[in-house]
Amino acid sequence: MNAEILAVGTELLMGQITNTNAQYISQGLNSIGVNVYYHSVVGDNCERLKATLKLALQRSDIVIMTGGLGPTQDDLTKETVAEILGEKLILHDESLKKIEDYFKRVKRPISKNNIKQAYLPENCIIVKNNNGTAPGCIIEKQNKTIVMLPGPPSEMKPMLDETVIPHFEAKSLDKIVSKYLKVFGVGESLLEEKIIDLVENQSNVTIATYAKEGEVTIRITTKNSDENAALKELNFVEKQINEILGDSIYSNEDKELYQVVAQMLIQKGVSIAFAESCTGGLISSIITDVPGISDVFERAVVSYSNKSKVESLGVKEETLLKYGAVSRETAIEMAEGIKELAETDLGISVTGIAGPDGGTDEKPVGLVYIALASKNGTKCKELKLAGNRNKIRNYTVLNTFDMIRRVLMN
Amino acid sequence: MNAEILAVGTELLMGQITNTNAQYISQGLNSIGVNVYYHSVVGDNCERLKATLKLALQRSDIVIMTGGLGPTQDDLTKETVAEILGEKLILHDESLKKIEDYFKRVKRPISKNNIKQAYLPENCIIVKNNNGTAPGCIIEKQNKTIVMLPGPPSEMKPMLDETVIPHFEAKSLDKIVSKYLKVFGVGESLLEEKIIDLVENQSNVTIATYAKEGEVTIRITTKNSDENAALKELNFVEKQINEILGDSIYSNEDKELYQVVAQMLIQKGVSIAFAESCTGGLISSIITDVPGISDVFERAVVSYSNKSKVESLGVKEETLLKYGAVSRETAIEMAEGIKELAETDLGISVTGIAGPDGGTDEKPVGLVYIALASKNGTKCKELKLAGNRNKIRNYTVLNTFDMIRRVLMN
Repeated sequence: MNAEILAVGTELLMGQITNTNAQYISQGLNSIGVNVYYHSVVGDNCERLKATLKLALQRSDIVIMTGGLGPTQDDLTKETVAEILGEKLILHDESLKKIEDYFKRVKRPISKNNIKQAYLPENCIIVKNNNGTAPGCIIEKQNKTIVMLPGPPSEMKPMLDETVIPHFEAKSLDKIVSKYLKVFGVGESLLEEKIIDLVENQSNVTIATYAKEGEVTIRITTKNSDENAALKELNFVEKQINEILGDSIYSNEDKELYQVVAQMLIQKGVSIAFAESCTGGLISSIITDVPGISDVFERAVVSYSNKSKVESLGVKEETLLKYGAVSRETAIEMAEGIKELAETDLGISVTGIAGPDGGTDEKPVGLVYIALASKNGTKCKELKLAGNRNKIRNYTVLNTFDMIRRVLMN
Repeated sequence: MNAEILAVGTELLMGQITNTNAQYISQGLNSIGVNVYYHSVVGDNCERLKATLKLALQRSDIVIMTGGLGPTQDDLTKETVAEILGEKLILHDESLKKIEDYFKRVKRPISKNNIKQAYLPENCIIVKNNNGTAPGCIIEKQNKTIVMLPGPPSEMKPMLDETVIPHFEAKSLDKIVSKYLKVFGVGESLLEEKIIDLVENQSNVTIATYAKEGEVTIRITTKNSDENAALKELNFVEKQINEILGDSIYSNEDKELYQVVAQMLIQKGVSIAFAESCTGGLISSIITDVPGISDVFERAVVSYSNKSKVESLGVKEETLLKYGAVSRETAIEMAEGIKELAETDLGISVTGIAGPDGGTDEKPVGLVYIALASKNGTKCKELKLAGNRNKIRNYTVLNTFDMIRRVLMN
């Protein structure tokens, strides 16, 4: 079975929003062995929507549509699908009741437009929406399956996970099994040169690499009706890659670097506090995305002003005067200061020039110091990063997490 | 002229990355009056890439391709385009030199694979890449234009902005002019009911609404060869919408709420400090995304532990004991504490239960207090939010920024 994800919405074509739904649905379908061959996006235009849907039905077994189920005038998805399949739209009482209940619960008046959302194709499986007013549906006809889901990710995701994925999982035979090895600190070309012999000698297992800012992911994939046999094949290849890349690989579970670090901190019971300057709370906000981090994360101080570095972190005024806020010496005092104040096992500081302004010949934009204080003393790393404010902040965060990871490994 | 954006890469279909490039390119093309009618994504598969490209050339005047220009084996874009258009790939000396220089600059050995990247179609306009090794190109043939750009956004974006957009801008006649009114605190259906008469009486100007978590954007658009006439039409409609929605509209420049707030703070010279608990530094990290914010942003304390609330913010221990960390009383003391410590005009605090754990019957997940201390006293707002950890954190951030905005308006 192969699938196509068809998003409907002029807002996507205008560039107002990103099609994150396509990514989420792709992950879900791939995980149950359904190949996704195409993503398409078309606007709220009846003729182009019809043509795109017809093409999708020609080339794909499954078409998952998102968007265009809203209450407004330009929401056309159900009407178009019904026309192409020759199905009628009828009022679905249970969905109407759910919509009415929803508006009671959120204590807002029900809008006339919302009632349109309770009309669904006559012969369909209804996909319940517990987070919004638009129900979804699954229609099977002539060996093709069309799924319609609402556009807002907070509604679409649970509907996919709770109803749509189980629906297809029950029908799938072959399992596609993938492993994702995440690498920090090695460029994509250099990495592929290192593993080129492995890549070229692939038979059942395919190896692909792709780069995201600062990181490379290696995907190893195989397909097999026997999941255990597939896993065995993958593990064999993974072991070979591990021998080549060693501890540059930070995850073999498709985890993000911050998730790996958070997990290590929690498992080892290592408490932590941050003193952030140029990253402005980014490190702290990312690591607190992980539930349960409060067991080890004590506090962070975002010390944007010199005054706050002195008052909240105990940095000496003469250090700031002599070396400046962006210096190895200040970074070290910030890290040691936050460790002492918070009484944590690790104190980590970041100070740098994220730009676009504030750089000098001596201290250019992109100069960053990361310091890590522990019971074994304080280390400090100097980075010279290129790129805009955003990139400099993000690379600093990644380097900080990698520095913590390497300390925790020992 | 209408355009299609065709991304090439199995990593997109596997759901490993989001197609943010399509959004960025759409914004660029729309801004110069090029209609984007389709986005497509196809994997690193020669046959499907060929079929998709042929279709794109049938239905669109311009095809912007991203991805598949990398150094690795599965990068097929140039080869496929050359085959379909009957063009030869030849070694481009200047590009080869740029690739060699790049590797010298980053002090990494040049890889054999990278040399493949210097091969380009014989009759093309080269799009220079100053941030990576893959040059792009523009090919015009039989009234169709194909543009090939690399996949990594940090490389693609400047190439689009510096070369591709100016290339098409020189050829475009009609201008599409849009305005985006951003609304916080009104649901999409209710909002459309309020403006339904305006929407239905559109003639030259189209009005569309779409929802993002917690916010609604109203897009008003018109097309005209005379840009001033178009702007006049838009301003007329905008004024009518303004009369209906008033100060729920926080931007008419497609700005984000945090950008509006940062701009107001900087322009008014109002200094600010944050005390964040459940948001873990998110408010601070978002506002420091704005260059120049250091003029008004003094510091933030991410006080995850009770200890840090007492030590770094001056919250009284008896307040924590009597009312708990998540309470109106603690929020107020946090806000007043950070204002006093940082000596700022405003002190803002957030404390709540982001979940998934930590909720009780009395204080469920989603209970959040936001307090704002100023010279006029301290206000505190209670929120009862629904959704997962991520949604609760994001809604809290939006509500915090809206609270600051409303204080700054007066």
